Amino acid sequence: MPELRQDIITGEWVVIATERSKRPESFTARAETGPDDRTNCPFCYGHEAMTPPEIMAYSEEERKPDTPGWKVRVVPNKFPAFSHEGILKEFEYGIYRAMTGIGSHEVIIHSPDHLKDLDQLSTEQIDLVLSVYRERYLALSTVEEYKYILIIVNHGPRAGASLRHPHSQLFAIPMVPHLLEMEISGAERYFREHGKCVYCQMVSFEMKERVRMVAENDRFVVLEPYASQSPFETWIIPKNHLSNFEEITDSDKRALAGILKGILENIADNLGDPPYNYYLHTSPLHQRDLQHYHWHLEILPRLTIRAGFELGSRLIINVTTPESAAEFLRAGYGQGNLR
Amino acid sequence: MPELRQDIITGEWVVIATERSKRPESFTARAETGPDDRTNCPFCYGHEAMTPPEIMAYSEEERKPDTPGWKVRVVPNKFPAFSHEGILKEFEYGIYRAMTGIGSHEVIIHSPDHLKDLDQLSTEQIDLVLSVYRERYLALSTVEEYKYILIIVNHGPRAGASLRHPHSQLFAIPMVPHLLEMEISGAERYFREHGKCVYCQMVSFEMKERVRMVAENDRFVVLEPYASQSPFETWIIPKNHLSNFEEITDSDKRALAGILKGILENIADNLGDPPYNYYLHTSPLHQRDLQHYHWHLEILPRLTIRAGFELGSRLIINVTTPESAAEFLRAGYGQGNLR
Repeated sequence: MPELRQDIITGEWVVIATERSKRPESFTARAETGPDDRTNCPFCYGHEAMTPPEIMAYSEEERKPDTPGWKVRVVPNKFPAFSHEGILKEFEYGIYRAMTGIGSHEVIIHSPDHLKDLDQLSTEQIDLVLSVYRERYLALSTVEEYKYILIIVNHGPRAGASLRHPHSQLFAIPMVPHLLEMEISGAERYFREHGKCVYCQMVSFEMKERVRMVAENDRFVVLEPYASQSPFETWIIPKNHLSNFEEITDSDKRALAGILKGILENIADNLGDPPYNYYLHTSPLHQRDLQHYHWHLEILPRLTIRAGFELGSRLIINVTTPESAAEFLRAGYGQGNLR
Repeated sequence: MPELRQDIITGEWVVIATERSKRPESFTARAETGPDDRTNCPFCYGHEAMTPPEIMAYSEEERKPDTPGWKVRVVPNKFPAFSHEGILKEFEYGIYRAMTGIGSHEVIIHSPDHLKDLDQLSTEQIDLVLSVYRERYLALSTVEEYKYILIIVNHGPRAGASLRHPHSQLFAIPMVPHLLEMEISGAERYFREHGKCVYCQMVSFEMKERVRMVAENDRFVVLEPYASQSPFETWIIPKNHLSNFEEITDSDKRALAGILKGILENIADNLGDPPYNYYLHTSPLHQRDLQHYHWHLEILPRLTIRAGFELGSRLIINVTTPESAAEFLRAGYGQGNLR
């Protein structure tokens, strides 16, 4: 059972994931990611038995679970950072506090194609992946112990991807994590002071200024945030206020698939296919129709290394202005520019 | 002039360091660190003119500034993230807040030796480096605009070191950074609730438990914190309460040099010379004799990659327990074990 431990000084929590634990010795041999080899890929057709039994899948034809023919497939993570077996329990250990690492850790396989990254899939296929996001959110939001669901993508080994076959990961966890707490309490404070959603304000300000705007369609803007933490940090924000991603309409979901494909293609084509992470920030579970919070997707290309200053202070030094990054990406759309 | 920008949602600040700015185009060519070449090293003897004029140096013989013969040398960073020219000024930009990036960014060259890492230097030489830390703290603490001084080491390119010749960096900045704010307010809360310094409590608990202890001498303990954020995160904590590093006595400084050499040697020898960062956490400037805060040094080996989950949540998944890491490092001292 993974364990959550609280830092006695800062109050921050850390997951000690014993299920995926590494022996100290294993760090001395610097592990490189394996060869780009489909024969051992647990996410390719015909290898369904290499994963734990599937949670769900989309397919056109009827099929038996854990057989080929699926279009998107969801399976439990084989080395979960959170476990859905056991009970949620806080406990003390001497002067410290801890809790059981209850939760769910799932893998969403984007397509049967071993090499096609998200931006190389059709808009229809990306739309299907987003449908799975929504469906899993809705299914897991009924579990009382879960307080937050975070869906993320790790693209490339230097962004933490350990398997090449493109996939998302979903984490259902027993607390609202620190970054989301900061976002939500900050947004709440802004709403109290200004009577407006801070994300709605930002969208309207940036659409006027245009210097940090990258692209837009009817439903979404793509922009570089004013206080970007890294070069090319990019957010996709819905133009209309909505606190909970899982309430996205089919037509908005389709529009998101299109704009997500466009920006990921742009980044891959014009920045040399860099490693990146993206993560979907939405309301905590069991909270709906928040006036002050606004779901969005954050893309973080991993072009620089966080060094001692950043890790020792949490004050990030960014060497590229969001204005110049936005200008570069606007040009990067070329013929296909959404504007 | 570098600029600090505040995240309008979370309230966190980011440094946009225009002085060291990278054009977006430069990211497409993946920069590798240069060859291990002394001929172009600005930190080697005879190359003193390649750095800005020196701030201070220790040497045995009398010498002219910016000439060879020094033992430890301090120079301004050529591409500073903070600038000491200009005035501290907060300002608004539309809906956002920013301030000028006033501060000082210095480089402390550990020795004339291009290749000798900190742990390979003599205890005497490390003691000299620590004396420079203390001297620069004291000198910069008189500047009213500076609120915090952070001294860090980046070891290895994957920990953010861009020059091979071993050095520390000192940042004097116009705010108390987020991580220190969290530490200090958390320690203050603990003191209010328990009437004791949380670091003193931790030292005494860990010396009894012994499972996360790595080493100790008369003045310091070396331990893996209970809520370690990464495999082999290691703290050096003074046994006697002291809030401000710059008040360290000569004999404590000597003891710190010894124990720092020992643990860095242990990590290098037994974990394959991994990249690491260390940073010195001490009280904010203009605050002294705090009962609730306790300076210490944190070493963070960079053995794993922070991925989408960690970046998108600030909840860190650690795959190694601090107990097993401590056991491994205790064994790693072998004959030279300080116990």
